[in-house]
Amino acid sequence: MDESALRALLEEVRAGSVSSDDAVSRLRDMPYENLGFARIDHHRNLRTGFPEVIYCPGKTVEQIVAISERLASNSHKVLATRISDEAAQALTARFPGAELRTPARIMVVPGDRPAPEPTDALCYVLVVCAGTADIPVAEEAAVTAAEMGSRVERLFDVGVAGLHRLLDQMPLLTGAAAIVVVAGMEGALASVVGGLVRSPVVAVPTSVGYGASFGGVSALLTMLNSCAAGVAVMNIDNGFGAGYFAHVVVRAAHA
Amino acid sequence: MDESALRALLEEVRAGSVSSDDAVSRLRDMPYENLGFARIDHHRNLRTGFPEVIYCPGKTVEQIVAISERLASNSHKVLATRISDEAAQALTARFPGAELRTPARIMVVPGDRPAPEPTDALCYVLVVCAGTADIPVAEEAAVTAAEMGSRVERLFDVGVAGLHRLLDQMPLLTGAAAIVVVAGMEGALASVVGGLVRSPVVAVPTSVGYGASFGGVSALLTMLNSCAAGVAVMNIDNGFGAGYFAHVVVRAAHA
Amino acid sequence: MDESALRALLEEVRAGSVSSDDAVSRLRDMPYENLGFARIDHHRNLRTGFPEVIYCPGKTVEQIVAISERLASNSHKVLATRISDEAAQALTARFPGAELRTPARIMVVPGDRPAPEPTDALCYVLVVCAGTADIPVAEEAAVTAAEMGSRVERLFDVGVAGLHRLLDQMPLLTGAAAIVVVAGMEGALASVVGGLVRSPVVAVPTSVGYGASFGGVSALLTMLNSCAAGVAVMNIDNGFGAGYFAHVVVRAAHA
Amino acid sequence: MDESALRALLEEVRAGSVSSDDAVSRLRDMPYENLGFARIDHHRNLRTGFPEVIYCPGKTVEQIVAISERLASNSHKVLATRISDEAAQALTARFPGAELRTPARIMVVPGDRPAPEPTDALCYVLVVCAGTADIPVAEEAAVTAAEMGSRVERLFDVGVAGLHRLLDQMPLLTGAAAIVVVAGMEGALASVVGGLVRSPVVAVPTSVGYGASFGGVSALLTMLNSCAAGVAVMNIDNGFGAGYFAHVVVRAAHA
Amino acid sequence: MDESALRALLEEVRAGSVSSDDAVSRLRDMPYENLGFARIDHHRNLRTGFPEVIYCPGKTVEQIVAISERLASNSHKVLATRISDEAAQALTARFPGAELRTPARIMVVPGDRPAPEPTDALCYVLVVCAGTADIPVAEEAAVTAAEMGSRVERLFDVGVAGLHRLLDQMPLLTGAAAIVVVAGMEGALASVVGGLVRSPVVAVPTSVGYGASFGGVSALLTMLNSCAAGVAVMNIDNGFGAGYFAHVVVRAAHA
Amino acid sequence: MDESALRALLEEVRAGSVSSDDAVSRLRDMPYENLGFARIDHHRNLRTGFPEVIYCPGKTVEQIVAISERLASNSHKVLATRISDEAAQALTARFPGAELRTPARIMVVPGDRPAPEPTDALCYVLVVCAGTADIPVAEEAAVTAAEMGSRVERLFDVGVAGLHRLLDQMPLLTGAAAIVVVAGMEGALASVVGGLVRSPVVAVPTSVGYGASFGGVSALLTMLNSCAAGVAVMNIDNGFGAGYFAHVVVRAAHA
Amino acid sequence: MDESALRALLEEVRAGSVSSDDAVSRLRDMPYENLGFARIDHHRNLRTGFPEVIYCPGKTVEQIVAISERLASNSHKVLATRISDEAAQALTARFPGAELRTPARIMVVPGDRPAPEPTDALCYVLVVCAGTADIPVAEEAAVTAAEMGSRVERLFDVGVAGLHRLLDQMPLLTGAAAIVVVAGMEGALASVVGGLVRSPVVAVPTSVGYGASFGGVSALLTMLNSCAAGVAVMNIDNGFGAGYFAHVVVRAAHA
Amino acid sequence: MDESALRALLEEVRAGSVSSDDAVSRLRDMPYENLGFARIDHHRNLRTGFPEVIYCPGKTVEQIVAISERLASNSHKVLATRISDEAAQALTARFPGAELRTPARIMVVPGDRPAPEPTDALCYVLVVCAGTADIPVAEEAAVTAAEMGSRVERLFDVGVAGLHRLLDQMPLLTGAAAIVVVAGMEGALASVVGGLVRSPVVAVPTSVGYGASFGGVSALLTMLNSCAAGVAVMNIDNGFGAGYFAHVVVRAAHA
Repeated sequence: MDESALRALLEEVRAGSVSSDDAVSRLRDMPYENLGFARIDHHRNLRTGFPEVIYCPGKTVEQIVAISERLASNSHKVLATRISDEAAQALTARFPGAELRTPARIMVVPGDRPAPEPTDALCYVLVVCAGTADIPVAEEAAVTAAEMGSRVERLFDVGVAGLHRLLDQMPLLTGAAAIVVVAGMEGALASVVGGLVRSPVVAVPTSVGYGASFGGVSALLTMLNSCAAGVAVMNIDNGFGAGYFAHVVVRAAHA
Repeated sequence: MDESALRALLEEVRAGSVSSDDAVSRLRDMPYENLGFARIDHHRNLRTGFPEVIYCPGKTVEQIVAISERLASNSHKVLATRISDEAAQALTARFPGAELRTPARIMVVPGDRPAPEPTDALCYVLVVCAGTADIPVAEEAAVTAAEMGSRVERLFDVGVAGLHRLLDQMPLLTGAAAIVVVAGMEGALASVVGGLVRSPVVAVPTSVGYGASFGGVSALLTMLNSCAAGVAVMNIDNGFGAGYFAHVVVRAAHA
Repeated sequence: MDESALRALLEEVRAGSVSSDDAVSRLRDMPYENLGFARIDHHRNLRTGFPEVIYCPGKTVEQIVAISERLASNSHKVLATRISDEAAQALTARFPGAELRTPARIMVVPGDRPAPEPTDALCYVLVVCAGTADIPVAEEAAVTAAEMGSRVERLFDVGVAGLHRLLDQMPLLTGAAAIVVVAGMEGALASVVGGLVRSPVVAVPTSVGYGASFGGVSALLTMLNSCAAGVAVMNIDNGFGAGYFAHVVVRAAHA
Repeated sequence: MDESALRALLEEVRAGSVSSDDAVSRLRDMPYENLGFARIDHHRNLRTGFPEVIYCPGKTVEQIVAISERLASNSHKVLATRISDEAAQALTARFPGAELRTPARIMVVPGDRPAPEPTDALCYVLVVCAGTADIPVAEEAAVTAAEMGSRVERLFDVGVAGLHRLLDQMPLLTGAAAIVVVAGMEGALASVVGGLVRSPVVAVPTSVGYGASFGGVSALLTMLNSCAAGVAVMNIDNGFGAGYFAHVVVRAAHA
Repeated sequence: MDESALRALLEEVRAGSVSSDDAVSRLRDMPYENLGFARIDHHRNLRTGFPEVIYCPGKTVEQIVAISERLASNSHKVLATRISDEAAQALTARFPGAELRTPARIMVVPGDRPAPEPTDALCYVLVVCAGTADIPVAEEAAVTAAEMGSRVERLFDVGVAGLHRLLDQMPLLTGAAAIVVVAGMEGALASVVGGLVRSPVVAVPTSVGYGASFGGVSALLTMLNSCAAGVAVMNIDNGFGAGYFAHVVVRAAHA
Repeated sequence: MDESALRALLEEVRAGSVSSDDAVSRLRDMPYENLGFARIDHHRNLRTGFPEVIYCPGKTVEQIVAISERLASNSHKVLATRISDEAAQALTARFPGAELRTPARIMVVPGDRPAPEPTDALCYVLVVCAGTADIPVAEEAAVTAAEMGSRVERLFDVGVAGLHRLLDQMPLLTGAAAIVVVAGMEGALASVVGGLVRSPVVAVPTSVGYGASFGGVSALLTMLNSCAAGVAVMNIDNGFGAGYFAHVVVRAAHA
Repeated sequence: MDESALRALLEEVRAGSVSSDDAVSRLRDMPYENLGFARIDHHRNLRTGFPEVIYCPGKTVEQIVAISERLASNSHKVLATRISDEAAQALTARFPGAELRTPARIMVVPGDRPAPEPTDALCYVLVVCAGTADIPVAEEAAVTAAEMGSRVERLFDVGVAGLHRLLDQMPLLTGAAAIVVVAGMEGALASVVGGLVRSPVVAVPTSVGYGASFGGVSALLTMLNSCAAGVAVMNIDNGFGAGYFAHVVVRAAHA
Repeated sequence: MDESALRALLEEVRAGSVSSDDAVSRLRDMPYENLGFARIDHHRNLRTGFPEVIYCPGKTVEQIVAISERLASNSHKVLATRISDEAAQALTARFPGAELRTPARIMVVPGDRPAPEPTDALCYVLVVCAGTADIPVAEEAAVTAAEMGSRVERLFDVGVAGLHRLLDQMPLLTGAAAIVVVAGMEGALASVVGGLVRSPVVAVPTSVGYGASFGGVSALLTMLNSCAAGVAVMNIDNGFGAGYFAHVVVRAAHA
């Protein structure tokens, strides 16, 4: 709740057009809707520029459908990440336009509001991944950024053990407004990319690997210790967060 | 080494104005200078937009002075981070214009090149920290971003245990083009800030704390698990990286 | 075994009404019943104010039923936590009044003894949780406190990434005699709540999350490092312990 | 900021006795005082029942003195924990009535406000510790609870390897309204005490120990895994937090 | 290979009754039998007092049967620990006298050699466990010690949260020649027992528990940090090792 | 891309036989083939002496088949490690000569190129493992080294708890040109072997074990701390890497 | 407090020779002496066979002297482990017969009671260590066992990287009644020794080492995972505990 | 002790020229010399090709001098690693030819035996390090390999964040017979180098770094997870081990 909104409301109170009881009530009830098991943050769209996204694990199919209905009824586009097959089928049955993006495992239900105007073709998010097994997380980032309105390019399977595969894509790398680097066994890729470009790099460790990869911890540490300035890190497997972050950067650059 | 530079050089070779021996030699020798114990990357300014920064720990005073001299002789501004008192005195003696920023522990030696034009006053990096003990890292971020050319604002000691101290600064928060959140014992601050703003948030855990803070690991984990989208994380105590990253985002938005 | 009980027994010995052999025997045999695989602590009700609760994992269905029978035959109310479907069915078949509380996974078999008089309506335990996926643990806490005799209120899905959902429930928060905060990905919630209220806060990390949440360790560490005084922490997913602790605090305040 | 305060302020705005500009201003400025390096939360006394306490590590002597002066100028009692000798001397020089409690390392500067009326003599916090080396943390808890207004009893060096030392103090244990258990090498003490009493137990692991004690982690884990219901845990060495928590429980029981 | 055996062999070589080639050969081939996938150590019986025991996980059913056959053909009693149902059925089919001990999951195939004479009835191993869920590991210890020839007593479900269940068994505790303490959530039990008795205590952490029990690590650390002298620790869930160790101690005391 | 290749290409450009556009293109496209989900590094054979090997986990059956086809079409021998049954069947159906090596779980598809001449019979890789359960990883190492062209010997089930099983194989140990030591519960074996031989030892920890073996971490740490010089370590379960490394050493010695 | 003592006391009560008040009092006061900061367990000698030992870290010099005085005044021999130079000087000044054992860092103050009769010369504790840097811990074990009354032999610097140094001491190894194995970088030594002997082996990891030795954790894990049956483990650097444990085993064997 | 030596000795015994007592004695005493605190392995030179090296930490100056004297008296070259200034001065005083190599911190005392013939100039060990702060460990590797007889080349400060510094040294990289890669914050360097060359790569993580570098653990994990085949890993900071290993590989290739 920002200062100007508060000030406007207070002016109304002072002018007598709003009672103080109403003001308290409005301040409390406006921004979300309480389903008991979830409080849907309809205000998030105004506050952060994008409606709430449903993170599916730990929610029942019924809960996912109910939240989707409430979001959709407010005309929001619905994004449901890491969705199970069962929940995907339920959403498909409920929303004819719903579409499951694989291998990202993101369900997209189009909203009534017009899509954000796509960013300039020259201003794109580049999603890079080190190995084939990292593609699902990379796609989660790519689909997220694209659904939010960014142009997205992909560069997959360019691990540092075969460096030439990366180096011959320099124009694609240096042209990006923001880069997402996704890697499990080759966390080093974030450092290498970070040293080659001017734009911000968002690194996403994946849980791909075995033995001392420790479910992504090794890649996470490698990325956190990157000596290349301009690299920031997301939680393990958090493709959604990286795509979101990259879009936010590109949106700012585009605006 | 980007494609256009390679192409230009190859054209010169083809035109006969450059021999292939010279070309090989130029490709090899151009971008850096070898001091034996260090290879100074003079090319970084072109590649990433800012000259190499000296990370002092593990380098002898003599090495720090020598690297500074080589950078300065190329007219670069010199930034030396986490500098010891002894090395700071040596640099002050060697470079009359050198200045030590405390409590950031960054030595700044101005270069001959004109400073980058400051960004628009409406486009600023905001550095937020949770507690008084987090200030040195927050200042490292603030000084870095400022020396690189960003306008910087500060908001210190606004931990989540006294939330009103943060909430009454909403205009400062929502107006920032990028936000650095620095916290040791209150890693939660990154989530809270991330939920209030539209701009990207760079979270820096600090090693401040005791017991189960594990030298910053707890804050790091808290930040990585943030549910607020738009938050990315740096290594523990890496104020420099956060300031650099925030500047890169603001520069893009400003450009 | 407290001093007064010992003193009384010794007096009987001295008076000759109890032989020393009998005294030794009574001291040894009185407080529990040995089933071989379990020693049921019938004395716990007197010592700590509530009968033994059955923690089901690792016990066979037969063992759970047998322990329930022994507790019930002493007129105790039986609580069996984290019960499997199979064991729940067996208890339902054996005890007509048994009831399974979902999603808490607690089986309740009413005892013959009159229920404890409910606490004053003004004196309640508030159970808060950050996300929908945290509800099973939150319900374990709520059901436990309620079955022990506390009035319980619930406030679910109020994570810090959408702070207004929490802040507009201030009266509910400040009115509670004890608060249980349950969170997996948003361990920060305990700090935020702790900074807003006067009453003791019991924080329960959950194993909800992915990547660097490490099965609840991140939330646990966040909670342990809370800067808000008045916050204490339970084991990961230990909703039972939190509900019990909160009830103990409320009972004391009520008494 | 609770609902009734907001409502009162809004009424004044509505009545015209406060302008909306003033209201915004008051909402923003009232609760704390900004020293630049610190934002002193004068409002905390109302919100949580006790003024802000100064955690000294990471603060300069100048900062500690400045914060103390601002708190004292508001008539608050000042508590400064884990204070260095140097800072203690500075406070002693500045505040004639200041007193250093050893081995708790807490500096107490009495405030002008009358002390809270002591709790009933029958309603006390009991601080138990396992070994002699745990005493500094135990004293931090004891001094904190006492300064906040609780009656405090101590029971030191009663580790479980010599159980009779604990068992013969049953009346002291069962009579306490809240118990703080402090232990480094013998985290088991919390379980044992928790199984003997009805009142809530706050367990504090200490960093005392060697080898696989891992700076208190072993004791922390032991305490978190306690099978005795009614035990909650604080951060390693957090005697202050435990004393504060125990006082809050006792205050509620006393009220 | 001990000195006297070497000396005897050398004497034979010197006497000419054994050629040096034969001696080398004998030294190499005598002590075990090579099945390719396993080298069965027939010499272990002489060296350590008990034949090789088959640890089943990671071995195929065929391998387990083959090793059992080779051991049995040397008249050894066969013990196969942590055996799967499938392997147990195969051994039962192959060896008529084979018997599966549950819940210890140890298969016993009696050998032709006469059983070791049982130890004196007054000289027994006591196996103590904290909770019902710890019984499988406790039984692994008990069956192992008994099969090796020790008299074994059991004392189950005597966790420290109900201390009287343990204390009234003092004669059983103080009379044991060696004690095995098995506990998952109540690692503290080893310290408590260790402080009550004169005999050596072998502590076995179990993987029973949840949350911060970390698969037995918490119990392991608790036991390693025991302040009671006379306590040594085995690997998590290593009931076999504890039973073996306790028998070795008792055998020495008996001899 | 090495200097001489670059120099040659530049000469062609200079001679006019290659245009600079072609040169750029050739530099970029030559070394690999882009399938979208994978970039097959056909150049690796020249650069490192062996074609790319397919690490199967995380790849779909379709992807594994497609990569195999592209490698085979370049006449390379195909090695696919840790292959699932399903993928193995698909490769067998597609490539008549394909053969699954168990228990190594490596699929081998012979290529058209003549096999590398086997190394001298006197120059062999020895693969040693500690226990029967370590055999799958040991076989992965053995098959890899053999397929690459090394002669391989095996020495299995020679754990340090029965040292004579190892010591009587001294000639086999001292004769090897490189030794791979594979162990899970007996990481110590690498130290023991390392102290007995002159040749390099590559140690591979396995995830075999239970409790405090932590999925191979204990063996990994034991091996890293080996006091025997001449021992280097691979990732947990990385039999492929160890076989590859040992072959590289032997190839050098053989050349 | 064992059953027979309780029974005797009860008999006296019954006979009227002891009042119940006296009995309560005696039960409470007898076994220890309360110094406020320490409760000296004079009863431990009867209960566990050896008086309390002073673990010095975390105790002040004054506390160490005071506890020593109380123990000595009860005629106990005083052992103070890990003593600082300052405390050692204070004890030497106070007790003329006190003697500091280096490098074990144990102070011994002889008591008035006659020394326990030494064990049979044929029945000894063997203390083995892997490297020179492990000697202080090994000596702590050796001095402890010797002061308690065991005959002790030493075998130092016999790490597994030079196995022959160990193997040629087979008679010393096989003759011991109990063996303490002390190792930091070569935790494997415990497995090797355990596989060679019949007697119980107590393994002590030391914090000697660097890098991935993690202050003794690697050695600890190696020892816990030992495949040699008959090996139990102590806390890191706990030479005292190992010496105590070994003595207890030998005493039993000797009795 | 290898088979042929044993066989020869046995032949002497058989021939009567050696008594069996003498044989036992010779087998036991020959290979090392017992100083009590250390057993010097004079036999190691024959067994592994290089005399014992003194690892100084944990040894007193007196012990280091004594061991050096014994090694020198057998004409061995003495290498003392990680030596303190104090011990270095003592060795310099004792051995006129002794020389301290900085920054490797290795003391070299030349032996009487002729130096091993240097390897072919075309066959060299290349030591690569990522940053200036990694140089001490890199030098430990370089000095070790050189003192053992390898030709050594150095390539320092070539971290992946400025990849061109590495790539323009391709001839030096591809020409090496073995490569040591030393890195703390840029563990990725091992992967990058491994992907560029045919020769074996020995990776050494260093403890250089801060925050989530965890004293070298991050670099260690990065290196263990390298996707480049042909990379093996040493303990953190173990420059000695890497130099030794690389020499062993080169010696084999040279032989």
